Amino acid sequence: MDQTIRVGVNGYGVIGKRVADAVTAQQDMELVGVSDVISDYRITAAVSRGIPVYASTTEGVAAMRSAGITLTGELHQLLDAVDVIVDCTPAKIGASNLEHYRAHGVKAIFQGGEKHALTGHSFVAHANYATALGRDTTRVVSCNTTATVRTLTALKDVGLLTKARGVLIRRATDPWESDHSGIMNTIVPETAIPSHQGPDAQTVVPDLDVVTMAAKGAHTQNHLHYWTIDLTRPATSEEVLEALSAMPRIAQVRSSDGIVAPNSTIELMRDLGRPRGDMYEVAVWADILTVRGEELFCTYTVDNQAVVIPENIDAIRALAGTVTDGAESMSRTDTSLGVRADFLTPAPHPDRIYPTARART
Amino acid sequence: MDQTIRVGVNGYGVIGKRVADAVTAQQDMELVGVSDVISDYRITAAVSRGIPVYASTTEGVAAMRSAGITLTGELHQLLDAVDVIVDCTPAKIGASNLEHYRAHGVKAIFQGGEKHALTGHSFVAHANYATALGRDTTRVVSCNTTATVRTLTALKDVGLLTKARGVLIRRATDPWESDHSGIMNTIVPETAIPSHQGPDAQTVVPDLDVVTMAAKGAHTQNHLHYWTIDLTRPATSEEVLEALSAMPRIAQVRSSDGIVAPNSTIELMRDLGRPRGDMYEVAVWADILTVRGEELFCTYTVDNQAVVIPENIDAIRALAGTVTDGAESMSRTDTSLGVRADFLTPAPHPDRIYPTARART
Amino acid sequence: MDQTIRVGVNGYGVIGKRVADAVTAQQDMELVGVSDVISDYRITAAVSRGIPVYASTTEGVAAMRSAGITLTGELHQLLDAVDVIVDCTPAKIGASNLEHYRAHGVKAIFQGGEKHALTGHSFVAHANYATALGRDTTRVVSCNTTATVRTLTALKDVGLLTKARGVLIRRATDPWESDHSGIMNTIVPETAIPSHQGPDAQTVVPDLDVVTMAAKGAHTQNHLHYWTIDLTRPATSEEVLEALSAMPRIAQVRSSDGIVAPNSTIELMRDLGRPRGDMYEVAVWADILTVRGEELFCTYTVDNQAVVIPENIDAIRALAGTVTDGAESMSRTDTSLGVRADFLTPAPHPDRIYPTARART
Amino acid sequence: MDQTIRVGVNGYGVIGKRVADAVTAQQDMELVGVSDVISDYRITAAVSRGIPVYASTTEGVAAMRSAGITLTGELHQLLDAVDVIVDCTPAKIGASNLEHYRAHGVKAIFQGGEKHALTGHSFVAHANYATALGRDTTRVVSCNTTATVRTLTALKDVGLLTKARGVLIRRATDPWESDHSGIMNTIVPETAIPSHQGPDAQTVVPDLDVVTMAAKGAHTQNHLHYWTIDLTRPATSEEVLEALSAMPRIAQVRSSDGIVAPNSTIELMRDLGRPRGDMYEVAVWADILTVRGEELFCTYTVDNQAVVIPENIDAIRALAGTVTDGAESMSRTDTSLGVRADFLTPAPHPDRIYPTARART
Repeated sequence: MDQTIRVGVNGYGVIGKRVADAVTAQQDMELVGVSDVISDYRITAAVSRGIPVYASTTEGVAAMRSAGITLTGELHQLLDAVDVIVDCTPAKIGASNLEHYRAHGVKAIFQGGEKHALTGHSFVAHANYATALGRDTTRVVSCNTTATVRTLTALKDVGLLTKARGVLIRRATDPWESDHSGIMNTIVPETAIPSHQGPDAQTVVPDLDVVTMAAKGAHTQNHLHYWTIDLTRPATSEEVLEALSAMPRIAQVRSSDGIVAPNSTIELMRDLGRPRGDMYEVAVWADILTVRGEELFCTYTVDNQAVVIPENIDAIRALAGTVTDGAESMSRTDTSLGVRADFLTPAPHPDRIYPTARART
Repeated sequence: MDQTIRVGVNGYGVIGKRVADAVTAQQDMELVGVSDVISDYRITAAVSRGIPVYASTTEGVAAMRSAGITLTGELHQLLDAVDVIVDCTPAKIGASNLEHYRAHGVKAIFQGGEKHALTGHSFVAHANYATALGRDTTRVVSCNTTATVRTLTALKDVGLLTKARGVLIRRATDPWESDHSGIMNTIVPETAIPSHQGPDAQTVVPDLDVVTMAAKGAHTQNHLHYWTIDLTRPATSEEVLEALSAMPRIAQVRSSDGIVAPNSTIELMRDLGRPRGDMYEVAVWADILTVRGEELFCTYTVDNQAVVIPENIDAIRALAGTVTDGAESMSRTDTSLGVRADFLTPAPHPDRIYPTARART
Repeated sequence: MDQTIRVGVNGYGVIGKRVADAVTAQQDMELVGVSDVISDYRITAAVSRGIPVYASTTEGVAAMRSAGITLTGELHQLLDAVDVIVDCTPAKIGASNLEHYRAHGVKAIFQGGEKHALTGHSFVAHANYATALGRDTTRVVSCNTTATVRTLTALKDVGLLTKARGVLIRRATDPWESDHSGIMNTIVPETAIPSHQGPDAQTVVPDLDVVTMAAKGAHTQNHLHYWTIDLTRPATSEEVLEALSAMPRIAQVRSSDGIVAPNSTIELMRDLGRPRGDMYEVAVWADILTVRGEELFCTYTVDNQAVVIPENIDAIRALAGTVTDGAESMSRTDTSLGVRADFLTPAPHPDRIYPTARART
Repeated sequence: MDQTIRVGVNGYGVIGKRVADAVTAQQDMELVGVSDVISDYRITAAVSRGIPVYASTTEGVAAMRSAGITLTGELHQLLDAVDVIVDCTPAKIGASNLEHYRAHGVKAIFQGGEKHALTGHSFVAHANYATALGRDTTRVVSCNTTATVRTLTALKDVGLLTKARGVLIRRATDPWESDHSGIMNTIVPETAIPSHQGPDAQTVVPDLDVVTMAAKGAHTQNHLHYWTIDLTRPATSEEVLEALSAMPRIAQVRSSDGIVAPNSTIELMRDLGRPRGDMYEVAVWADILTVRGEELFCTYTVDNQAVVIPENIDAIRALAGTVTDGAESMSRTDTSLGVRADFLTPAPHPDRIYPTARART
């Protein structure tokens, strides 16, 4: 058994709490603690579950203590006790933390809200685990970019991808929010084309020919992506689905199984007993995906809160350098989290073979 | 140890799947199987989790088998193998099932979508467990009515209740739905006053002086109730909160802890690791509740998908007659499901005493 | 014909643009101009319609001119040219404008976002036109408070009102907004009881016994109010409807005519050709309203953008002192705006008598 | 002056009432009456405005009369009195009406809910007015298809269009609806690619190379289209905008003017005094539109309730054969309805030249 990686999480919000739980689920990692500045139910829930809580700032110490939070210490003490810190603070704040992490000699992972230039390396496990090995820092790209890179590299790996043009309908705000970024009864286009996700994907895979347009839709969870993709040659839907399924963390759903929209995938995750109802996979609709000659048209949905969690776990191993083979790290992560590599919808019974799967043989 | 009650669930939808899971969590119950007519992801998820699935109709057998569902048998075979069937079929269908259940000598629990007259007994555990003991049938009232009865009987128990006037803002449809009953960007008042919930509460507690008005709000989970209540005498907020807390299955939340709306309670349930993010408790806002002389004003939120689950479990024991003391049954149920009797928001640390709790001593 | 009142509007937003249009519709008023600091489509639309536009601040002059807006002048020039200024600037900003108005000897009307203390007088035409006569300032109360005062004084006028307890489900944000105060898929209770509307109604009618509770619903237009009202004696629904109809600016709708929710009233206003689809009346559901002994239960909807517009017009006349009889002013206003005093839904044909109306004779 | 075309409208819903109003606005048309089977507020509003109302069915006569509706007659009487009937009945019902219209020798226009085969001719004024001249029937294509044809033919006219790939985010239901097709807090992809709009556009312009994918978004008015378009040669944004502006009924908006989403266009229409707040134009975002080499990326919004109204008016003239020149008919229609050919947002002042327009010279 390899050495245990000691991990801290700075910022206990949407991503931070999921990273903390996922770290706890790894046999080769130890969650030393989480750090934040708030005193609301999120932090008291962490305390009640026995997670050591640190204050991110000195002012935070007083505020949190006076609110009755049992503090294990301050962030600098957490940094002294970990090998890797996962920074899940709000966008732009992470950048100001980097020096702090460096001063403690701690390796650091940032999220997609920070700029690529902060770390000089942007991470999606399947695409570039190797180049992150042993680095001091990396940046796990955002939910939309992660899904984009997974999908397009799956096609690129088998030599099918020429170029991709995407329309990304993002969820407007998180489901627990009631006062931030909410839009009501409209859909808001981003004011620039390309939207940032296309160029962001190129920070991971520079030679992708990808352009994205994006809008905020009036719903609170999951993104929906539409792609028009030029293939290198005429292909069949079965070939494309096979290429996508070869990529762990892309799974298939079917509208004919009752998965008709992002909210059905959320219900399915609950039915499968996933913690918080999280979906780590990109869920592509196998029975909507269409190929016409050399053109591929498809749509998938992305759980904006969960899709980057497996990537964060792999990034920890890559920086720590304890697992040199990306496929081995991804396999450990996916097994521990129950990630499915083929169908999200359970097959009706063990003998059942989906038409698509059958067509592949 | 008492005898194991063999339980079946007919109708594997929003309520049925939760009842099935809750039955599995009871040491004194065995889930023999579930029955339905559909073949979509909900059923395949049940099969994948090892739950025996039966077809509710003979036509269903062919349809489900051709869809690849592994069937354990038909509903009549399930009925031959159980002591109690919990009918969770859509509203109005349950009524037509009653003769079927009787013919098999099986005790039956119906849901709030059926009329009181179907069983002649409507059930909320705290209010009338005793009168359900050994009966052949009962009906667990709807989510809104269950919450109403819990709250008003808590005040009635301590002699505080004179009369209650409520406004119930219901969720318009379930979160997984995308084609049924959805309203968008409006709020739809019910066309009759009183709405059915007030009279429905009186099927459980006949002498309640309660009138309700109701509307559907443009959200997909949880109801929000507002009450104006005449007390029998001037009281303090602390007295009222103490009376509510004395009722298991009513718990307190505070907006000052960041629980500012029903969607924050859902996030909290996820943070607490509840299965499917379910909240079994009525969540009353302790820091909004106000008493002015003999008038009480308060608001709470109700998880429409989960609040009746504990009642269904208690109803099983009541009909089976294996536990004669309602308090004992409720205690078993609540322990198995992790129901909290006081605060939903975890106390920041063990020594922390909420002001309200302190005021009580 | 009485003298023409010269009117300016400071703040050309939701309320300001409607006041400007309504002033234009009065034979005894002249819209001298509107003032603002923005340069977006709202202002260019005003310019394109020939409305003189002024800059509210000196900095605004440069910004608006550089954006190509044709300016007629600055606010101080507008103030020199008017008898009455209607301040429709965002909440709290109005207060800082008062000295400016006084310095120019201009009478000023503020909106409900300002505190009562700013003017010492809060206005609803039917309730207290007389006390505003000739004053230098008044404050037209907010949409929710206006509707509350109209309804409760209608009952008070005929000696029926003892006390009123209301639940107010507010629209969360305006329909044109996409970045302010939006809530999504939830309903947010106000954290204090009483909510401010009850006490605010008492700034207009001090002896009202009224308590309100309020929440924001997930829709973008119109409020929905529910009331539980203790009457002074047993009454009939017909008596109550007759009392409400005696109040201009309260009109009846019926769910049996297809008006089933606030969004149907908006469609009706469009069908009736109302400018911007505005509804100036409180729309009470006649066939939902219920009386039980001495208790009245009812619900109505309020167009938050339009309901205060008639009150602003009357307030202008009251301050100017040109019309001493409130009923005369209200009549002029209502005629010019097409306000209906009885039924919002057109009677099917001239001979048609609504059952309710018939019952009254 | 040419002869007056006598027009009837069968089906007085979302489209029918707008067609009726638009017919009334034409100097060369007379609205003889409208026909329907309902008795709700929509019909009583028509009666109250003096529009002759007919019953579409014999059963309708009794029902409408008993509801108090003043009927002018039955549909067959309306058909005897008109030259052209515009069928605006719900999708699929129109087909069964065709024989009825033929039996009365009346020319008939159907809407996009009917199949192309019903009439053998599908209509968008700019694209194929000439081929509709003197025909007995035509079909005005749906709102999404109308917008698609307008935009793509504008590019085709100037020889710029190679192929177009679109993602259409439709409004889920109409704003006045509260019980039909509503989706809440999700986005629902259509289960087939191409969605029907692409092939439908080819019923109007057969040689368009167009593929569409579509989803229903959680809002109630206006569609948002995204296009990736291959041009025949490298071009500039200015060239493309000039080509679009050359097409009447495509107008420009700018996010920099505060028009940031479909709901701002609705507010703008209200500010411009449009009846019902209707937008007849396709509103393309000039400052989002981007050209990269030979690829064009753009987004526009479409008022699903209003965009087909001008086409219906032109279709009436085409079938009647009174105006042989499509451009002349479109000009009459657009003038009468106030359709803007260039910018929807009013220019700040007469001298103002938008940068884009300036760049063109």
